[in-house]
Amino acid sequence: MKESIGKVPGLAVILVGQRRDSLTYVRNKIKACEEAGIKSVVAEFPDSCAEEDIMTSLSKFNEDPSVHGILVQLPLPELEYYLEFYKRTLYVLQMTCKSFLVQHLDEEKILNLVSLEKDVDGFHPINMGNLSMRGREPLFVPCTPKGCLELLLRSGVEIVGKKAVVIGRSNIVGLPIALLLQRHHATVTIVHACTKNPERITCEADIVVTAAGVPSLIRSSWLKPGAVVIDVGTCPVEDPSAEYGYRLVGDVCYEEALSIASAVTPVPGGVGPMTIAMLLCNTLDSAKRLYAFT
Amino acid sequence: MKESIGKVPGLAVILVGQRRDSLTYVRNKIKACEEAGIKSVVAEFPDSCAEEDIMTSLSKFNEDPSVHGILVQLPLPELEYYLEFYKRTLYVLQMTCKSFLVQHLDEEKILNLVSLEKDVDGFHPINMGNLSMRGREPLFVPCTPKGCLELLLRSGVEIVGKKAVVIGRSNIVGLPIALLLQRHHATVTIVHACTKNPERITCEADIVVTAAGVPSLIRSSWLKPGAVVIDVGTCPVEDPSAEYGYRLVGDVCYEEALSIASAVTPVPGGVGPMTIAMLLCNTLDSAKRLYAFT
Repeated sequence: MKESIGKVPGLAVILVGQRRDSLTYVRNKIKACEEAGIKSVVAEFPDSCAEEDIMTSLSKFNEDPSVHGILVQLPLPELEYYLEFYKRTLYVLQMTCKSFLVQHLDEEKILNLVSLEKDVDGFHPINMGNLSMRGREPLFVPCTPKGCLELLLRSGVEIVGKKAVVIGRSNIVGLPIALLLQRHHATVTIVHACTKNPERITCEADIVVTAAGVPSLIRSSWLKPGAVVIDVGTCPVEDPSAEYGYRLVGDVCYEEALSIASAVTPVPGGVGPMTIAMLLCNTLDSAKRLYAFT
Repeated sequence: MKESIGKVPGLAVILVGQRRDSLTYVRNKIKACEEAGIKSVVAEFPDSCAEEDIMTSLSKFNEDPSVHGILVQLPLPELEYYLEFYKRTLYVLQMTCKSFLVQHLDEEKILNLVSLEKDVDGFHPINMGNLSMRGREPLFVPCTPKGCLELLLRSGVEIVGKKAVVIGRSNIVGLPIALLLQRHHATVTIVHACTKNPERITCEADIVVTAAGVPSLIRSSWLKPGAVVIDVGTCPVEDPSAEYGYRLVGDVCYEEALSIASAVTPVPGGVGPMTIAMLLCNTLDSAKRLYAFT
């Protein structure tokens, strides 16, 4: 693309706060961009920043023709919880607290501002609607779900008519993975915090995708012999011997799963790199679409 | 509302073609509007009408301040099938057939034109996206799914943590019902044409919502004792003794289901009237929103 039309894809990342896992993810995404020849820029904001500052930065990226993908690293910092705490304990300060609420970051408002054509994370509700509806095509499939599907397809796992269980129903992972598996004609069940006997439901599945964020939740008793297991869970656990003082742990007891499943993705090194690869892929697709380059 | 602010809600219906079931549905909707004091107008088009004519009519309704709800009665006539047939058998006429394709009605394009604020059917992808995402609220919940949920809630059926099976995954019924049950914290599985052994999966469900359109698909062997069964299936079957020459038949063997389920909705008379009631409800909500009337 660079040789043919003299353009490179560009990715803009908005990072708010200092969550360790978010810092790691953003660091890895930028590094991958560099390796692939994608121009990248990170706009960093402190936890306590004003929503307006983020919105202004986002608007600039929306208008910048050298930016083809924009991602807001989630989750955004939650000041709301503290607000509730203040409200309950310091009733007299309620008026003050209301002004806090105005300052709080509205994830929905921020994500809705991302231009549809640059929403490489695919989190806009119109993208999600098109992903869920038959006969419609989203502009972008969210990166982690797309990466999970790519793992299944490239490994030759049959999906049509298979029983799939997705554990977790977040907007970012659980929901879009379920929608995507359904698009590929699996029979999908979403297991979540309210599900009774999740173990019994999960152990009937041919394909298990888990995004619960609960370390070592999935033991061998949860799995059907021969099942394919994709572990999206990543929980940072303190580890002084690790490079950054912690390591990432998945939802699956890897060793136990290995003994019964036909395939298991490791954490780290399984879904994570795929998420990043799909982000690059979506950014490239976006640039190609803009320049009508095929 | 009429007494307080001198306004009544208005519903516009677009009806294309002569499908018997569509005619019945539209007739019933208009009658219900009259009974409830909602102004209604129907724009009728022949099977072979030009897409432009529908789009023009839609645009007028979008701009008309006395119209608060617009619905396009689905399914739209399918000329596509015949086109494929012509293409295959009369290869020499392919050029002619291409011009047919241009005339064909693009459901996506037509539905996308309906103003979000008047989309009382809730079929716009942004509505569907907001229905599927946690923490988001759609402007309108599609009428049939909303009616099914209302039946469950008003009958005191517990949904949280219950196993629900939805049979069928259409954009109009199966998908939004599944999303809605999920929003109410059921553990949802969607059964569809590719599902292996749907009977075994269905007979584990506490709540079964079926929208397959296959008469008498659900026998007693498909049901868990005590299950709650909602039958959305409506298949017109020839019956010379009936008023219009046919009668509607559901997916469920009603008598068989009665003997094992704790509750079953009949066809006709179950979900159908609820769908219409929810359409009136959505239209009223839309008018109240416009006039800021509470």
